[in-house]
Amino acid sequence: MSGLSELARGLSAPRGFVVASQAVSAPDAIRLVGGIPAPEVLPVEAIARASAALWQDPAAAVASLQYSAPHGSPGLRNWIAEREDVHPDRIVITNGGMHGLTLAVLTVVERGATVAVDDPVFPGFLWALEVATDRILPVPLESDGFDVEHLARRLAAGERIAAAYTVPDFHNPGQVCLSAAKRQALVELADRYGFHVIADDPYRELRFAGKDQGVGVFHDSDRVIHVNTFTKTLGPGWRVGWMVLPERLVEPVIRLRNRLDVHTGAVTQAIVERLVTAGDHWFDQLVAAAAALYRERAGVLAGALHERLPGVFDIRAPEGGLFLWVRLTDARLDPADLFRRAAASGVLYQPGEFFAADPRRRSSDRHLRFAYSDRTPGELREAVRRLAVAFTSG
Amino acid sequence: MSGLSELARGLSAPRGFVVASQAVSAPDAIRLVGGIPAPEVLPVEAIARASAALWQDPAAAVASLQYSAPHGSPGLRNWIAEREDVHPDRIVITNGGMHGLTLAVLTVVERGATVAVDDPVFPGFLWALEVATDRILPVPLESDGFDVEHLARRLAAGERIAAAYTVPDFHNPGQVCLSAAKRQALVELADRYGFHVIADDPYRELRFAGKDQGVGVFHDSDRVIHVNTFTKTLGPGWRVGWMVLPERLVEPVIRLRNRLDVHTGAVTQAIVERLVTAGDHWFDQLVAAAAALYRERAGVLAGALHERLPGVFDIRAPEGGLFLWVRLTDARLDPADLFRRAAASGVLYQPGEFFAADPRRRSSDRHLRFAYSDRTPGELREAVRRLAVAFTSG
Repeated sequence: MSGLSELARGLSAPRGFVVASQAVSAPDAIRLVGGIPAPEVLPVEAIARASAALWQDPAAAVASLQYSAPHGSPGLRNWIAEREDVHPDRIVITNGGMHGLTLAVLTVVERGATVAVDDPVFPGFLWALEVATDRILPVPLESDGFDVEHLARRLAAGERIAAAYTVPDFHNPGQVCLSAAKRQALVELADRYGFHVIADDPYRELRFAGKDQGVGVFHDSDRVIHVNTFTKTLGPGWRVGWMVLPERLVEPVIRLRNRLDVHTGAVTQAIVERLVTAGDHWFDQLVAAAAALYRERAGVLAGALHERLPGVFDIRAPEGGLFLWVRLTDARLDPADLFRRAAASGVLYQPGEFFAADPRRRSSDRHLRFAYSDRTPGELREAVRRLAVAFTSG
Repeated sequence: MSGLSELARGLSAPRGFVVASQAVSAPDAIRLVGGIPAPEVLPVEAIARASAALWQDPAAAVASLQYSAPHGSPGLRNWIAEREDVHPDRIVITNGGMHGLTLAVLTVVERGATVAVDDPVFPGFLWALEVATDRILPVPLESDGFDVEHLARRLAAGERIAAAYTVPDFHNPGQVCLSAAKRQALVELADRYGFHVIADDPYRELRFAGKDQGVGVFHDSDRVIHVNTFTKTLGPGWRVGWMVLPERLVEPVIRLRNRLDVHTGAVTQAIVERLVTAGDHWFDQLVAAAAALYRERAGVLAGALHERLPGVFDIRAPEGGLFLWVRLTDARLDPADLFRRAAASGVLYQPGEFFAADPRRRSSDRHLRFAYSDRTPGELREAVRRLAVAFTSG
């Protein structure tokens, strides 16, 4: 009687932290939870100007209200292509990063096929992946990213995958970047075994230390789908992102995306295009200001943890992105108990187990993910103070 | 080596009119082609005001730039629910009508299942349907819509379908409305055989004659997915629409839509919400003005055809919507030849064969679809003059 498709029946319910935490947290809890841009760096005034300019230009206004190309606005694609250093034909505008991931999955992952993923993994990807499969091959995350050698051994042993998924820059949750050498090795492995690499890169612009490991090797490959978005820079509310695709995948992705919802909103694309092309370096300045703010917040958070809870965590200083991923050093501490006490003390974070790709391996059980991006330095210090209370209340 | 999923391999290339016509038409051709809103009735000034008000309200501006609920903005859902006379929980905001159709298909149509569709049919639906199946059961369109008795006989004979698709108001391309009696009969049939009805209703607001056949029977049913959109009223460029869902389908649709692209853009929803809630009757006045303009254009087109090409077409006066669907009365005329001559004379329309659900039945080969919505009265008269030239040049 339900009449649901097998696809619909196979999609799991929301789970994990969000549901759990809402039940236990104090109303004034400090949430170090989501990868959310700081309101302070969202360019509201520039948006107001770009938006007013659009509506005051009759031809552009009417054009933005009509149908437009499924690939996206040519002007926006050109601007992105220049930044990515690829031909504009290879850029497809999406409704944000998750949309790019799902389009990639539906295009290159056969139903029921296996996909290699980081362990720990961004759980949103596993969630999206269910539109095609729930068979994953967890690949350990090392200090220089996705363990390509581990995957190579599994493939040599006969395992077959449709795709390998990783977050190459400022991994969520694992904080690390994939080294240039591993990028090259991963692309070569994809060539050898005929799978696709889905490189999910929403934090890439937000570097504030260390050295960029480069995306040219991805763009030179016929096997990499590089997914990016304006979500972490201009805001999630736009739902505007992009894919850099190998040429042969552009038409298949367009055929699919055109069916799903025709094209990304032309109004939003028109405003975003006016924003990013407003001045030669407007976007560079925006992301530089955002990165500076996130560097400060990452520093405040890590510093407060060192100061108030010395030796309690293994901490590496982030080089970019929105997250601090720390490991409890004391093996006797129960992470679930700590999480409950922290929530009761008025501080929320994501417990590491939420990010486990392989629940049996329990690789991230003893980790905590702190999102520092949308909390002020004062809030971050207060959050650590409350966390220290949670430790002493145990 | 291609590595494309079966889904991606199964999606057909763009086809039909658009590709063909671009090759043959004069640069100054008058296009009576797409179901596109008239630029004159797109409320650019009101949008400019709503948009400026949003960006001048710091809290609302920042909220619109962040993540929001996958169901859509509560305010916009409430406004729609009141118009639809259903509980707001049953409204899901989509990225426009096509998105609603695809979500419906992926949620209730098993891969490879059969779906009953109007014949003639909106080809965009067959295009979207390929994400699940290419097996269709064409159901003739009568002067009062989808032939429910025909479908009942096929079902009684053992045929099984996952869903039945129709455009109940101002059918595209067939111009007709589904009668109240047939709406009731279709819903009862869906109950008896356990299929879903996908009611695609983008033109519903644009009535300028005749009597509304009502959607209450759809909303009272547990079997109807009612898909609507702001595309034909506020413009396609927003990519904002909605579904009215039976309660039991809300969660499955949300699980899917959340995976595909998280949620419809919060910026666009915030502007659209401010627009439609700007005054008690703002939207009513907008659609009334649009309907009056389309009534005039439909009248000009039909009048010019009667005057310049008397007896050449069977013509029924439209009661709403954007299209005139006429049939050639002279069986000796070759429609393909006429189309080529019309294009050479500088007028483009959609030949009927493009809309055939069952190519063998050739039910619409002798029809022409004229879209009058985005052409001025002067252009419509000139288009008919050119069409008359095409007839005499044969």
